[in-house]
Amino acid sequence: MATKSDPATYIFNHTMFRIRDPKKSIEFYEKVLGMECFRQSDGPDFTNYFLGYPSGFGSKAGASKEEKGDAFTAREGVLELCHNHGTESDPTFKGYASGNDEPGRGFGHICIAVDDLQAACNRFDELGVKFKKRPEEGRMRHIAFIYDPDGYWIEIL
Amino acid sequence: MATKSDPATYIFNHTMFRIRDPKKSIEFYEKVLGMECFRQSDGPDFTNYFLGYPSGFGSKAGASKEEKGDAFTAREGVLELCHNHGTESDPTFKGYASGNDEPGRGFGHICIAVDDLQAACNRFDELGVKFKKRPEEGRMRHIAFIYDPDGYWIEIL
Repeated sequence: MATKSDPATYIFNHTMFRIRDPKKSIEFYEKVLGMECFRQSDGPDFTNYFLGYPSGFGSKAGASKEEKGDAFTAREGVLELCHNHGTESDPTFKGYASGNDEPGRGFGHICIAVDDLQAACNRFDELGVKFKKRPEEGRMRHIAFIYDPDGYWIEIL
Repeated sequence: MATKSDPATYIFNHTMFRIRDPKKSIEFYEKVLGMECFRQSDGPDFTNYFLGYPSGFGSKAGASKEEKGDAFTAREGVLELCHNHGTESDPTFKGYASGNDEPGRGFGHICIAVDDLQAACNRFDELGVKFKKRPEEGRMRHIAFIYDPDGYWIEIL
């Protein structure tokens, strides 16, 4: 009798996009957005970094990075950043597509829910973050959009 | 005294990409992958659909769609599908970029963690899902990649 698979047990574990420079991106996602990089997976010419909010580990929020790295497939809300070695120092590298312009339209953004939109945006300003849309711009006053170091859009809700 | 924002309270709420045909995509994410579409947000020429695994609502997993739609910003693992009206019936529409080919390389994939990789893949086969990589192909035997209706890559872990 074959083993069955039950979709009710599935979880939306992670989202992956490519980054040019892990030093800049990890600093951004950790210092600006408060995530933690809890796992690094090295290939021959690339490295994947796994980040997420410690709170998403539930009772394991205070565990070591190694323990979190071992447990990360059991949670949602993980961000995988893929670094193809060398892009960070290649002057001919053209950068990655945000997915919001032609050619290459498809992917849109990731969204971070924050405690207080205006206070969060004030803090982003102090940290020198670039905005695509401030809360007071446009029709949607309850959201903002910032750029990550590669130009990906991040909705702030 | 200004309100402060504490990044430790932030959560990675959702990932958004564009879809050509909501009928096909929502059927895929609900029937094949077991998510639930719990919220629909209509704009003048687009509709955003919000999906996720009911389990990600924790104690609200059994709540009504409306209650889930109201509570969705407090959880991780939400997928937002953006439908620009008309693409589904426009013969000149060229489709969206998966993010994995030039031009438009950047975004990579989303990943769904399943209960049993081989059983899940057998079920996907029965449902007519297209594979980019079966578990037995390539070096990485513990993962597979399938395509969603727009050609986005979904890692199965």
